[in-house]
Amino acid sequence: MSNPVLVEVLRGAVVESAHRGAVAVFDADGKPLLEIGETVRPVFPRSAVKAIQALPLVESGTADAYGFGDRELALACASHTGEAAHVELAQAMLAKAGLDKTALECGAHWPSNHDATIALARAGGVPNALHNNCSGKHAGFLCTCVHAGIAHRGYVKAGHAQQEMVRDAMQSVTGAAHDVDHCGTDGCSIPTYAVPLKSFALGFARMATGRGFAPERARAAKRLLSACMAEPFLVSGSGGADVALMQAAPGRIFVKTGAEGVYCAAVPELGLGIALKCDDGAGRAAEVMIAAVLARLLRGDEGLAAKLMELAHRPVESRIGAKVGTLRPTAALN
Amino acid sequence: MSNPVLVEVLRGAVVESAHRGAVAVFDADGKPLLEIGETVRPVFPRSAVKAIQALPLVESGTADAYGFGDRELALACASHTGEAAHVELAQAMLAKAGLDKTALECGAHWPSNHDATIALARAGGVPNALHNNCSGKHAGFLCTCVHAGIAHRGYVKAGHAQQEMVRDAMQSVTGAAHDVDHCGTDGCSIPTYAVPLKSFALGFARMATGRGFAPERARAAKRLLSACMAEPFLVSGSGGADVALMQAAPGRIFVKTGAEGVYCAAVPELGLGIALKCDDGAGRAAEVMIAAVLARLLRGDEGLAAKLMELAHRPVESRIGAKVGTLRPTAALN
Repeated sequence: MSNPVLVEVLRGAVVESAHRGAVAVFDADGKPLLEIGETVRPVFPRSAVKAIQALPLVESGTADAYGFGDRELALACASHTGEAAHVELAQAMLAKAGLDKTALECGAHWPSNHDATIALARAGGVPNALHNNCSGKHAGFLCTCVHAGIAHRGYVKAGHAQQEMVRDAMQSVTGAAHDVDHCGTDGCSIPTYAVPLKSFALGFARMATGRGFAPERARAAKRLLSACMAEPFLVSGSGGADVALMQAAPGRIFVKTGAEGVYCAAVPELGLGIALKCDDGAGRAAEVMIAAVLARLLRGDEGLAAKLMELAHRPVESRIGAKVGTLRPTAALN
Repeated sequence: MSNPVLVEVLRGAVVESAHRGAVAVFDADGKPLLEIGETVRPVFPRSAVKAIQALPLVESGTADAYGFGDRELALACASHTGEAAHVELAQAMLAKAGLDKTALECGAHWPSNHDATIALARAGGVPNALHNNCSGKHAGFLCTCVHAGIAHRGYVKAGHAQQEMVRDAMQSVTGAAHDVDHCGTDGCSIPTYAVPLKSFALGFARMATGRGFAPERARAAKRLLSACMAEPFLVSGSGGADVALMQAAPGRIFVKTGAEGVYCAAVPELGLGIALKCDDGAGRAAEVMIAAVLARLLRGDEGLAAKLMELAHRPVESRIGAKVGTLRPTAALN
């Protein structure tokens, strides 16, 4: 892991901290457009691949049977911030399958959105599994089980039919074997598999173009990415980097963050998929990296590239809100 | 910054993320006992040097005049978690100088202790400057000003008599020039100066031994470190790594965390000072690093070393509290 420094944190004029990482940009034929650092090393994608993990929800006919549109599909691909809109929609999705929050096996945590946490506490509430940032994905899993007549209990475990469907989709889309030696448990209790970073870039190029997919999968992939681009707030939440990036060019950029500094993304008009990982797992750095990579790929559109480069520079603030430093991409990302 | 990987984050059996860093261990004569990575590169110490910054509070006679004991001095050196005991003591310190929270210029933020934040929200409260993790340090600054008859307004700014006292103490203790080119603004609005990492190690060896200090400074330094070791909860708070480390060997280990992955520490019985910085600024990694370094230095005491090595291994948990991974020091720290 001797990847280059891709992001610097400045305080005043001094570099205070630095983040290394690797970036892979591939087309759907597996041709690399950009590779920075080690792109073959296995990386856990965590939540960055939720759109691929949601393919069975669409392909099984569940989404249609339950009348799920962009909003529900976006939430199924989301790492949401636990705001009211997210919680209510996850609940409504479960209700379509005759279930409620007690069926969720993702665990509970306070909303990642600070204001939502304070509001919940002020209302005398405590978080439940619907507040879990993955509750939309899990609601999608549960709906898929119920629609297919599969007993949903234990749906988070490796070997359960739901996780087998997810693994099949992941292997097929990324072209990388998902083996037990590279299996870990994600924060929401489902299996996550470490595979080469470049495989995720290829996978999202395929998701964006449908190239190499059967027609049904191509349609499902397009529908999921379109849903996320149409409803970025539901994929993330207030103040989320994914919202700002997808809103910078509505319908033209798909991005999805994952824990421990991962991003997957796609630019359909360029037929490209992107995957990156900050070595140390810092989300703040991964956000700068993805914005800078997108600015580089989309430099043909000067206005958009400028907007993305602005998102790649983030202020470091003191507790009184004064700007005392900057996060910025290094020349390695130019 | 090509420092070695010092901490690995494992998920299952796979290394998911990795943290690089540098470590300096020096005695009070400036003799290195251990140097890992680049120890000459300038590093902002942030809150890790609060004990040095508190020297004027003691040396000016303010602490004695206001009757400050271990508790108040520990809080003056603290990055506290904003729990009731911290807030009330900061308020009491200010009251000794006839001041209240409106004199604080550190800014407000919600308590870093999650339970304290929830309790404050449930009580219908909002955070004020007393909840700022630096409020004890700032209370100490303000008391020093009032006792010395210095107008306290603007006490956080470079050039104000209070910050000149702090800079003088920092320069004298570390032996490193604190110049304007390496000056940044800390989160609590005071100046912070980037100087070589090794200078902080030397400085804390001096703080622990008094070696090279005039008698008055030696007494003040000993009193401050003793206060922190006697009242670790007030230096940090519930669940704080600093509390666990100092409680592992009461009175024998001084540690203080700083933002962006910094630690300063001292082991008086060995006459050693320690400074370390995680390159990427991750606190989780810096906590593992300091525990592992202390275990190495104190390996002569097998029971204590084992306890410290246990603190250097931390579980990664899923949202249901299952252990799904580990943070661990690499062989470079052995």
